[in-house]
Amino acid sequence: MLDKATNTTDVETLMAEIGRKARAAAKPLAIATTEVKNAALLAMADAIEANAATILAANAEDMRRAEEADLSPALKDRLKLDESRLVGVAKGIREVAALADPVGDVIAAWDRPNGLEIERVRTPLGVIGVIYESRPNVTADAGALCLKAGNAVILRGGSDSIASTRAIHACLVEGLNSAELPAEAIQVVPVTDRAAVGEMLKGLGGNVDVIVPRGGKSLVARVQTEARVPVFAHLEGLCHVYVDKSADPEMARRLIVNSKMRRTGICGAAETLLLDTALDRDLKRALVTDLMAAGCEVRGDAGVQALAADVKPAQEADWSTEYLDAIISAREVDGIDGAIAHIDRYSSNHTEAVIAEDPAVVEKFFNEIDSAILLHNASTQFADGGEFGMGAEIGIATGKMHARGPVGVEQLTSFKYRVRGSGQTRP
Amino acid sequence: MLDKATNTTDVETLMAEIGRKARAAAKPLAIATTEVKNAALLAMADAIEANAATILAANAEDMRRAEEADLSPALKDRLKLDESRLVGVAKGIREVAALADPVGDVIAAWDRPNGLEIERVRTPLGVIGVIYESRPNVTADAGALCLKAGNAVILRGGSDSIASTRAIHACLVEGLNSAELPAEAIQVVPVTDRAAVGEMLKGLGGNVDVIVPRGGKSLVARVQTEARVPVFAHLEGLCHVYVDKSADPEMARRLIVNSKMRRTGICGAAETLLLDTALDRDLKRALVTDLMAAGCEVRGDAGVQALAADVKPAQEADWSTEYLDAIISAREVDGIDGAIAHIDRYSSNHTEAVIAEDPAVVEKFFNEIDSAILLHNASTQFADGGEFGMGAEIGIATGKMHARGPVGVEQLTSFKYRVRGSGQTRP
Repeated sequence: MLDKATNTTDVETLMAEIGRKARAAAKPLAIATTEVKNAALLAMADAIEANAATILAANAEDMRRAEEADLSPALKDRLKLDESRLVGVAKGIREVAALADPVGDVIAAWDRPNGLEIERVRTPLGVIGVIYESRPNVTADAGALCLKAGNAVILRGGSDSIASTRAIHACLVEGLNSAELPAEAIQVVPVTDRAAVGEMLKGLGGNVDVIVPRGGKSLVARVQTEARVPVFAHLEGLCHVYVDKSADPEMARRLIVNSKMRRTGICGAAETLLLDTALDRDLKRALVTDLMAAGCEVRGDAGVQALAADVKPAQEADWSTEYLDAIISAREVDGIDGAIAHIDRYSSNHTEAVIAEDPAVVEKFFNEIDSAILLHNASTQFADGGEFGMGAEIGIATGKMHARGPVGVEQLTSFKYRVRGSGQTRP
Repeated sequence: MLDKATNTTDVETLMAEIGRKARAAAKPLAIATTEVKNAALLAMADAIEANAATILAANAEDMRRAEEADLSPALKDRLKLDESRLVGVAKGIREVAALADPVGDVIAAWDRPNGLEIERVRTPLGVIGVIYESRPNVTADAGALCLKAGNAVILRGGSDSIASTRAIHACLVEGLNSAELPAEAIQVVPVTDRAAVGEMLKGLGGNVDVIVPRGGKSLVARVQTEARVPVFAHLEGLCHVYVDKSADPEMARRLIVNSKMRRTGICGAAETLLLDTALDRDLKRALVTDLMAAGCEVRGDAGVQALAADVKPAQEADWSTEYLDAIISAREVDGIDGAIAHIDRYSSNHTEAVIAEDPAVVEKFFNEIDSAILLHNASTQFADGGEFGMGAEIGIATGKMHARGPVGVEQLTSFKYRVRGSGQTRP
């Protein structure tokens, strides 16, 4: 049974109240010690394991509605929880507890000739709004990460997963209560009205500092277009791999299959292969046929089509398509300059890789391409906060303001200056 | 003679073109070497000195129009250039040339167990929009700072100073040309229509990355309300000084007069004095009478009114008024907790100072107050990028996203990740 606000004014009032409660909770959270925050996180993980039966029953209710609504198998898979997925959720929260606390960290410190001692110190951002779709585990992941960085969070999950979300949220609140942190530090929007999202995007009267959308392109596009507060997001991951004539052949073959085929549905999957015209022709053919042998459709320009019989012709739209599937676009380019020109034109500024042994080529690629993540001789599938050693991530950002690349606990902070004097006046 | 766009469509077209040119210029700028950027800056400073007569003649034209329009003496003073102010402008540009280049700076670096080497490296932000009022020197300051950080800039000065702005801009372009950097790296909006500002605030079709307003509260408020791109700004600097009962008496007397009276019109000037109720009564009286002796009007609560005859009664509005004048509001508070409660309620999150010898009081102040700059035993008038040793600043930001406190060349940058591998695929 879902609550429904009866009209727009109700939703506005409700959301404004949620915003005020989040802002009020943010204050004690900002000064909570690492020990208290970690105690809350560990209690949350315990509560999720202790209440597994309740959560799975709630999830079964969501799954029943999903069946009735005839959702796609992919959506149902995202929605589904089982014992092993729940163990993973609890483990994820414990990993966040194990991360270093960014709050209070001295980022930089220097002294002035007049004796002033200046420190730049990390502080929480304040209130984070997370808008997501059907994955119920986002409730726990996002709640835990925001708490670790000392932020209050307002979670707005999809209507498909509302019962699961509420059941998980109850466990998070149990953890907050046990550590005597305010229960409003992690709130779930209790209504499924689309208008609630609109209110969050307007910033709840200054009570939301940043919005993180988690979901498909249409959700992210809506958030980026309508939000009146900063957004940490990427619209798409149109990742390129450029193979230079100086590439190590065996390495190139391994990296390209992994970049495209390890998992095709993630934002770090390669979508376009750029082959140096000067690359050995047999190697070019091997790179393309390896992909096809692994089950990937290749859409190529004339040069790539000439390499193997099954290559389909690429259309202009292919260069700007994020397939998120076993399909890749491929073309020949005139060395590193041709690769940079193509990437400048079509990239989504997420992740690009260069496979080369020539250091001048690598430096040019690293200097001139302005994407969040640039990789040399490594798979694009490493574009991930966990793989970067940053612990869990709440998302990957392609904007250039504040956060860029994986958004982990550090990126969910701001900073302030602490200046220690001994009576200095300004002349 | 001012150019005028004849209608809104013209302004839209013109501004869109300026945005496209800025974005195109940003690319070569982002990869320009430190040497080339510094050569351009030094040539700009030389050109300003060499063309002093032309600039002063243009400024005389602006001043003539200011007389006709009967502008206030304060506005005319801001508008006015003379030989010595022009020397200051050239000197400021040379100081920016002497700053360390932030672009390419490795902010952080770490290795992963699988051998991946990760670096976080500073990059330019892209295109900065600066909207300012009558001070013609902002043209040179903002142009130089943005260039040093590898950003293109679109400058929109006030109509009062348009002739001076154009004359200075011509010198900046001379510097860009002499270093073979694109002339469009620093553009001045050639029309004075208010609609041009509106177009900039909408972001020129994705071609403005951040807006920096420089001017009075009404300009900043308009920019913060209307901008669809991030803004680096502070609406006001409602700075507090709290004097704890543990304060050194002589130090407190010096710091308070300096915090309020050194210059009353700057954002780092103190506006509210908070006196610990437990503070020695004679010291409280001295703090208040010192200010009055220095020519400051004091508006106090009942406790402060009881200290000296000339204290005027403070109204509720006084606690949230940024006087920018020789006026201060003053009240008694119940120790550090009372001070924090008052600051939480009324602060603009710019700068606050604590005068105390008790380290527990200082730590509480530093930990619990969430303003950009917190000072211990030092004047609030140190809230300035130059005083922080950050070189010139383009402004001070009170937002929590990206930049906070003084905005210098470092804060005008973003970053990217460079990852070096040796053939790693992701399992």
